[in-house]
Amino acid sequence: MRLVRFGARGVEKPGALDGEGRIRDLSTLVEDWRDSFIDPAHLEKLAATDLTALPEAPADVRLGPPVSEVRKIIGVGPNYHESARLAGFKVNPEPTLFMKAATAVSGPNDPIEIPRLSTRTDWGVELAVVIGRTAKYVSVEAAMQHVAGFTLSNDLTERNFQLQRGGQWFKGKSHDTFAPIGPWLVTPDELPEYHDLHLWLDVNGERMQEGETNRMIFKVPYLISYISRFLRLEPGDVIMTGTSAGVGLSHDPPRFLAPGDRMVLGCDGLGHQDYVCIQG
Amino acid sequence: MRLVRFGARGVEKPGALDGEGRIRDLSTLVEDWRDSFIDPAHLEKLAATDLTALPEAPADVRLGPPVSEVRKIIGVGPNYHESARLAGFKVNPEPTLFMKAATAVSGPNDPIEIPRLSTRTDWGVELAVVIGRTAKYVSVEAAMQHVAGFTLSNDLTERNFQLQRGGQWFKGKSHDTFAPIGPWLVTPDELPEYHDLHLWLDVNGERMQEGETNRMIFKVPYLISYISRFLRLEPGDVIMTGTSAGVGLSHDPPRFLAPGDRMVLGCDGLGHQDYVCIQG
Repeated sequence: MRLVRFGARGVEKPGALDGEGRIRDLSTLVEDWRDSFIDPAHLEKLAATDLTALPEAPADVRLGPPVSEVRKIIGVGPNYHESARLAGFKVNPEPTLFMKAATAVSGPNDPIEIPRLSTRTDWGVELAVVIGRTAKYVSVEAAMQHVAGFTLSNDLTERNFQLQRGGQWFKGKSHDTFAPIGPWLVTPDELPEYHDLHLWLDVNGERMQEGETNRMIFKVPYLISYISRFLRLEPGDVIMTGTSAGVGLSHDPPRFLAPGDRMVLGCDGLGHQDYVCIQG
Repeated sequence: MRLVRFGARGVEKPGALDGEGRIRDLSTLVEDWRDSFIDPAHLEKLAATDLTALPEAPADVRLGPPVSEVRKIIGVGPNYHESARLAGFKVNPEPTLFMKAATAVSGPNDPIEIPRLSTRTDWGVELAVVIGRTAKYVSVEAAMQHVAGFTLSNDLTERNFQLQRGGQWFKGKSHDTFAPIGPWLVTPDELPEYHDLHLWLDVNGERMQEGETNRMIFKVPYLISYISRFLRLEPGDVIMTGTSAGVGLSHDPPRFLAPGDRMVLGCDGLGHQDYVCIQG
């Protein structure tokens, strides 16, 4: 299934795309895409629903983040060799983990806020994994049983805040709108080839990033297992799996975002995001 | 007011201490200590309640964390000169900020889990600030208007996970039970001297930490204002303001926690925590 949340900010309803890509309203079947409603077993049951019997959402409705009540966003540091080399980050023998504040989540087409005093706001298209079942000390083999689905994400970062304001990346990764996710939460049965997807990102029509998820250093099941050694993952938690080559920091000269810039990004099977930057 | 949450884990009720220190059940007046229920204006209104007219909680009831639905825990890096020097951390011209996963929250007397593979689990008694009203780009002068109250906290850290596992402190600060808070959420009117409190922590009866909040490098109103430049603070967010001298890492030789160890810690006006360590 391809799950969505549609409607005005804060009052989104849960929906799903039917076979023809139209949004169907599932609010009579589920409260929202959170907690036990995104448990893999529940989603498997829901997959038998005849979506065409459900009401259609209004045309051109806004899409919100496809998960409600995101509690944690965990980012993975350098996870593509070429990206790390170009941006000057060291690849560690184990994944580098960081957090983004969950308040940074926004919808797939909502404007991106450039923070006040920002001079180096950067992008990073990524495959994101959404947890559907609590995971603590899980094995690599069992890891995928804890996944609700995949979604497209952009790990926005203010590079000065991240690197030159006295410590810990979190400071540059947590501004409102710095974690757009969506348009869809795609269940794993619809995306068996998640380890072999093409990702891309354009700024003002110019291709800035391209990558393939098959070039990830630390793979998705390993990441889930690894993170679950350090903390408890819960339904609605989002893991951003790292960005491929082409972030603004790695361009020569570096390229950063300004109010008025438009970003369009996409990934095989996960749709695309399209937004403009505004002054925050 | 001194607010508490009492009852079994996950089904705690909101309460408050009456003039004689007995817990009164406020569940007929508030849903829980979260969202608009901890807005400073709402708490000010509640302060007029005759608590002695409300039912008493059962004797010896468990206390939970005094805030429900903690969404973010933001830690402040070195914030006491002596502590930083002894532990070998550099004090930056601006606060170092890090996150702890909100799943790490536990009650003031719940057992502390030592993570599997841990060899260096460390303590850190701290004054914590609980946000009661959304704060984004707030001034130092207006910062305290966004505070619901203060609480005692222990910023537990696995030092190997924090410092020697490939990056970002978050990895060592987020295990379940690594953020005990409570026993009370104390409203600011009850603790006007929050900038001059004595903190202490004992392990197995031996005094390990002592400090005074008047030795903080970055003060509470500044921290709130500073953090709010980088992200949106929301009701229920917890700011741990940094630990004073005496963490295990700074002892010679270093001292760390093991299953069976008992910690007791306290702060003027904020009560104390008392728990044992167990294998996680």
